[in-house]
Amino acid sequence: MRIVVTNCNTTRAMTEEIVRGARSAAGPGTTITGLTPAWGPESAEGWLDSHLSAAAVLDALRGYEEEPYDAVVMAGFGEHGREGARELLDVPVVDITEAAAHLACLLGRRYGVITTLDRSRGQIEDSLYTAGVAAHCAAVVGTGLGVLDLGDERRTTEAFLAAAERARVAGAEVLVLGCAGMTGLQRVLGDRLGMPVVDGVGAAVRLAESLVALGLRTSRAGGYARPRPKRRTWSAPVREGGWPGR
Amino acid sequence: MRIVVTNCNTTRAMTEEIVRGARSAAGPGTTITGLTPAWGPESAEGWLDSHLSAAAVLDALRGYEEEPYDAVVMAGFGEHGREGARELLDVPVVDITEAAAHLACLLGRRYGVITTLDRSRGQIEDSLYTAGVAAHCAAVVGTGLGVLDLGDERRTTEAFLAAAERARVAGAEVLVLGCAGMTGLQRVLGDRLGMPVVDGVGAAVRLAESLVALGLRTSRAGGYARPRPKRRTWSAPVREGGWPGR
Amino acid sequence: MRIVVTNCNTTRAMTEEIVRGARSAAGPGTTITGLTPAWGPESAEGWLDSHLSAAAVLDALRGYEEEPYDAVVMAGFGEHGREGARELLDVPVVDITEAAAHLACLLGRRYGVITTLDRSRGQIEDSLYTAGVAAHCAAVVGTGLGVLDLGDERRTTEAFLAAAERARVAGAEVLVLGCAGMTGLQRVLGDRLGMPVVDGVGAAVRLAESLVALGLRTSRAGGYARPRPKRRTWSAPVREGGWPGR
Amino acid sequence: MRIVVTNCNTTRAMTEEIVRGARSAAGPGTTITGLTPAWGPESAEGWLDSHLSAAAVLDALRGYEEEPYDAVVMAGFGEHGREGARELLDVPVVDITEAAAHLACLLGRRYGVITTLDRSRGQIEDSLYTAGVAAHCAAVVGTGLGVLDLGDERRTTEAFLAAAERARVAGAEVLVLGCAGMTGLQRVLGDRLGMPVVDGVGAAVRLAESLVALGLRTSRAGGYARPRPKRRTWSAPVREGGWPGR
Amino acid sequence: MRIVVTNCNTTRAMTEEIVRGARSAAGPGTTITGLTPAWGPESAEGWLDSHLSAAAVLDALRGYEEEPYDAVVMAGFGEHGREGARELLDVPVVDITEAAAHLACLLGRRYGVITTLDRSRGQIEDSLYTAGVAAHCAAVVGTGLGVLDLGDERRTTEAFLAAAERARVAGAEVLVLGCAGMTGLQRVLGDRLGMPVVDGVGAAVRLAESLVALGLRTSRAGGYARPRPKRRTWSAPVREGGWPGR
Amino acid sequence: MRIVVTNCNTTRAMTEEIVRGARSAAGPGTTITGLTPAWGPESAEGWLDSHLSAAAVLDALRGYEEEPYDAVVMAGFGEHGREGARELLDVPVVDITEAAAHLACLLGRRYGVITTLDRSRGQIEDSLYTAGVAAHCAAVVGTGLGVLDLGDERRTTEAFLAAAERARVAGAEVLVLGCAGMTGLQRVLGDRLGMPVVDGVGAAVRLAESLVALGLRTSRAGGYARPRPKRRTWSAPVREGGWPGR
Repeated sequence: MRIVVTNCNTTRAMTEEIVRGARSAAGPGTTITGLTPAWGPESAEGWLDSHLSAAAVLDALRGYEEEPYDAVVMAGFGEHGREGARELLDVPVVDITEAAAHLACLLGRRYGVITTLDRSRGQIEDSLYTAGVAAHCAAVVGTGLGVLDLGDERRTTEAFLAAAERARVAGAEVLVLGCAGMTGLQRVLGDRLGMPVVDGVGAAVRLAESLVALGLRTSRAGGYARPRPKRRTWSAPVREGGWPGR
Repeated sequence: MRIVVTNCNTTRAMTEEIVRGARSAAGPGTTITGLTPAWGPESAEGWLDSHLSAAAVLDALRGYEEEPYDAVVMAGFGEHGREGARELLDVPVVDITEAAAHLACLLGRRYGVITTLDRSRGQIEDSLYTAGVAAHCAAVVGTGLGVLDLGDERRTTEAFLAAAERARVAGAEVLVLGCAGMTGLQRVLGDRLGMPVVDGVGAAVRLAESLVALGLRTSRAGGYARPRPKRRTWSAPVREGGWPGR
Repeated sequence: MRIVVTNCNTTRAMTEEIVRGARSAAGPGTTITGLTPAWGPESAEGWLDSHLSAAAVLDALRGYEEEPYDAVVMAGFGEHGREGARELLDVPVVDITEAAAHLACLLGRRYGVITTLDRSRGQIEDSLYTAGVAAHCAAVVGTGLGVLDLGDERRTTEAFLAAAERARVAGAEVLVLGCAGMTGLQRVLGDRLGMPVVDGVGAAVRLAESLVALGLRTSRAGGYARPRPKRRTWSAPVREGGWPGR
Repeated sequence: MRIVVTNCNTTRAMTEEIVRGARSAAGPGTTITGLTPAWGPESAEGWLDSHLSAAAVLDALRGYEEEPYDAVVMAGFGEHGREGARELLDVPVVDITEAAAHLACLLGRRYGVITTLDRSRGQIEDSLYTAGVAAHCAAVVGTGLGVLDLGDERRTTEAFLAAAERARVAGAEVLVLGCAGMTGLQRVLGDRLGMPVVDGVGAAVRLAESLVALGLRTSRAGGYARPRPKRRTWSAPVREGGWPGR
Repeated sequence: MRIVVTNCNTTRAMTEEIVRGARSAAGPGTTITGLTPAWGPESAEGWLDSHLSAAAVLDALRGYEEEPYDAVVMAGFGEHGREGARELLDVPVVDITEAAAHLACLLGRRYGVITTLDRSRGQIEDSLYTAGVAAHCAAVVGTGLGVLDLGDERRTTEAFLAAAERARVAGAEVLVLGCAGMTGLQRVLGDRLGMPVVDGVGAAVRLAESLVALGLRTSRAGGYARPRPKRRTWSAPVREGGWPGR
Repeated sequence: MRIVVTNCNTTRAMTEEIVRGARSAAGPGTTITGLTPAWGPESAEGWLDSHLSAAAVLDALRGYEEEPYDAVVMAGFGEHGREGARELLDVPVVDITEAAAHLACLLGRRYGVITTLDRSRGQIEDSLYTAGVAAHCAAVVGTGLGVLDLGDERRTTEAFLAAAERARVAGAEVLVLGCAGMTGLQRVLGDRLGMPVVDGVGAAVRLAESLVALGLRTSRAGGYARPRPKRRTWSAPVREGGWPGR
């Protein structure tokens, strides 16, 4: 089957890293295609970026017509857009935030999320709640690192280990990596912590495969009915002189 | 003071109706300016529209430089974008969804929301929850009418009365109008139901005035810190031939 | 319009301080009248005082007939009586506990309440819950100061700053002053903390003005129906010899 | 041991009925003394009555010095005052609302409360919540009867049977009688419904006996510390001419 | 990989049916082995059966040594034993109750569970709650059929359709089959209802495969640490004359 | 009346200690009979032990026919089996976990549970939740001691005092002893902490006496209906050669 994995930002290097992680997690016979939004933020850190990212990702998905595909994985941890994609597409949509939490619940009584900036905690808490998997989340802990600082591996590892310890004290028995494209980090942390560490990208790929294999699709009976036909403009008109809108 | 009231869709007639309602609610000395996004959906009905609307409204707000203003009212009931606007702007931001609920809590033990399509219920429930005011919501009831069908006043009134009865049975003692630009309806319903009916636009204008008058601004200590400086593209490029993104 | 602001205790100096705060917050054209119960506790600190205060405040309200008024603000933080006043009166009733929380929710993701004695925390938690605004309360922190110790400004400020720090660590992005008549303190704390600080008296006055301006009144459809006509004795008979009651 | 059972209103006939119920439930060696407040409402139906009742009951308790006693049962279903009495007294205090719920939880997965007027539902819900026993309450159902209408036994029984059916549909497996002094009714309902029916007065007497027998007393470490010494006026002054308080 | 699927009762025909369902859901390269407890109830319907089943299933698992295996699926819907198996085994354990709920959350905003007897609802609610996936459960509805009555396909289908309608009215957008070994029914219901229907056995097999493929194992850091070494007797002694135990 | 108190493990010395505690708490005219399961774990520490214990205790109860009895107390703190016993027996069943919490709620605003091993915290939290009394639990704290280490009184006392301090910091005003057979410890802790300390065995005996005295029995209308007649095997068949089950 083919799974399209969408990055939530415009940084293609990150899309490639996410695709690598997705491929290493995918089952035999699954093809992974990466999708980078043509517009939006270069990294998603905070609510403004998240709202911008959601529209850009949906624009990319609605325009994607290269090849047929069987499911979509949305690879922005704690970012918006999940529900809109479920309305838009006829294939299953799995977001890495919820995916990591679903698997974490199977591995221990409480899980903790380790993310980049503290400012992202609120979005992640809301995303877990609206996905129905917040009940066993013991804590969402920030490392203080920005998405684009994750290059420095040693510093990143130390920061995540420190945050993991705070999550453990808060009751976490399992850890969730609260950002995309860090498959390497997952292994290092697992070894050093003696706790399972769940990466959302891998979890989402496997859950998407499971839904497809079981013939399950998003329900159209209720909140995720198909979008109503209407006029939608996805890009700003060229601005001349004064700003439109009044 | 000046309050900018943003419509969540591109239909200017609706902006004008919202502005009328806002002006009729505003205190002496308050100037209301309407803002219509330059792109986005012509009406917001569902998650896809909501995510698209959020980015378009934020784009309109970041670009708005006509005159200085003291607060922003976001006039999309149950739509996304509220938190992004709080990050973006240095003035208070009040969303009509939360505003109506805040005032409703002061008028009775439980309130009910009457909205247009059933499909919007989930977004409204999530929006009330993430705003911290869901606890006393007894029910969110749909009328089955689309936003653009609200023109037919008699049909609209009957549909809202029927939905109001369902909310009352569910425990509501106060009603919230779950959509913008229906000031007239509010009065009719109130008279026929013998219950207070809260319109979000009026509520938000008064709450915004209150915050400004008390010198209160959005906290920057935490989730609503200023957006980080970075490269953000706010609009889809004109597409020639193949789609970008892989 | 005229707003009657009721103190929850019999100390007139505190009524005057509360009235000063209310007047500094009120809009143009609003007249503030203070009301001090003729009986009850000299300060409300704990459940016993709160229950006594509730009856005394209701007795004062039912007997108040000087001039017509448009709304009532109940200025006891965490004290009982709010719902009884809503039954008793035909004008909107706003309690400073809920009022501060309502505005705080508009300014940050989580708020914290700083109050006087630790023993009051339970009442405040219950009052926020029963008002429907507890969801975003990160912590209620006591300073260890009694209501009547608040005179010593320097000591008070230091105690509140220490408590504010604990609230911030618990996740608060906005602070609520958990007692009445401390408008000065609000400003000092705001400057030193770099966080918005909400004073319940000002918040309640503005919310009461908003309800009146929008023509909204307490719902009579349910819990706050008018009190049933019956024999009620509001004061103890003169006691001669043995205690009555068996 | 001696248990003082306080009525929440001034109607002595009701105190006597409550005392009869308490005596029929009490263990050997327990003496029941009834206490009727010297002031307050003739029946408690709604928030205003409840707040008035709380102060009057506390006034009666603080003045009660006839004989030493070992525990207090507060016999107002859903009425205020419980926490104040715990502060005031050195003996255990059990309220019939919480008592009935505690025992009901031991008899089935969910319980339902059947009360008099619908308007009392909110108070009962809040009282169960603040007592920590609301989680298994499936419904609080009103019969539409006032406290003083309960004389007509046949009508009362039919009204309670109808309400019980609604509670059963809502998931109740056990019923709680949501008012005091109806021991007879409890038996009739139990037989006709084939479900256990818990009377709060009997439950509270047995729980009070249990606490005394186990040597357990209210914790002073926290919310129920002894009231602070201060000036408290428990009664309205005789009014001459103008109303005091400004 | 090899997955051991345990029936919760001693009826081998049911084990075989469950194994058929598991095999039809399993991925290529997965071998399914069925395990039937040597003792316990012939069907699990209620708490007593569930507690008996849990011990018998754990006894079967601890004694299972035929071949190495990679994961265990526990195929009793709403039955106990899940956490004990996680302590006991070094491979991932997935229970069909939680598994169905996890996948259902990915397909719609709210899901409903349709089970056999009404008496099982409480166990299922508790099992979903303790697994951390109850938040989006709109209703657990019983069909009134016993486990062993499920043979009559037409009657079963009608009963499930009627229950499904009740779940839909309660807000369910996705259905979960609340019992094992009904793969056929799943397809029929899905077609007739136009809603996704999740079978727990298939869901659990896919989730177990996912955990194994991702190298994730139950956390030993906390609640699921290995059982302490001690004397455990797994079976009642043969009884001669008087009963042991006092 | 006669109350049967069941130990959750096979260690008779512990049964005797529990019986001593039960007798010291029982009212005049109550006879306590201890029951030790004929099989199961020698101590219950963790989920596996708990599931094994539940079946063994139910087996002991169903076989108990010495003398008639009026109620059962289940003396395993946080162990399973409570609901199965309610189905099985026609007399009231009270579990010491819930019993201690019910009485603790009457003594302070929040209670804390002090137990042996940290690994037991999850079971206790779940048991309090499913019993409907978790709302006021401030914390469940482990001492790090195993059930069979409780012999060393001095070490045990110090460990419990340290844990109690952690519970107090978390908001506990009342303590619950999270294990059976420690009546002595209860007194020592109470004196040293100045807080009420509730022992589950004593609490359960008094609650059981109360239910019996009030003529209250487990509801058969719903979750606790009588077990359905069917074939149940309570012990493993003698194994010859290969293991049964496939």
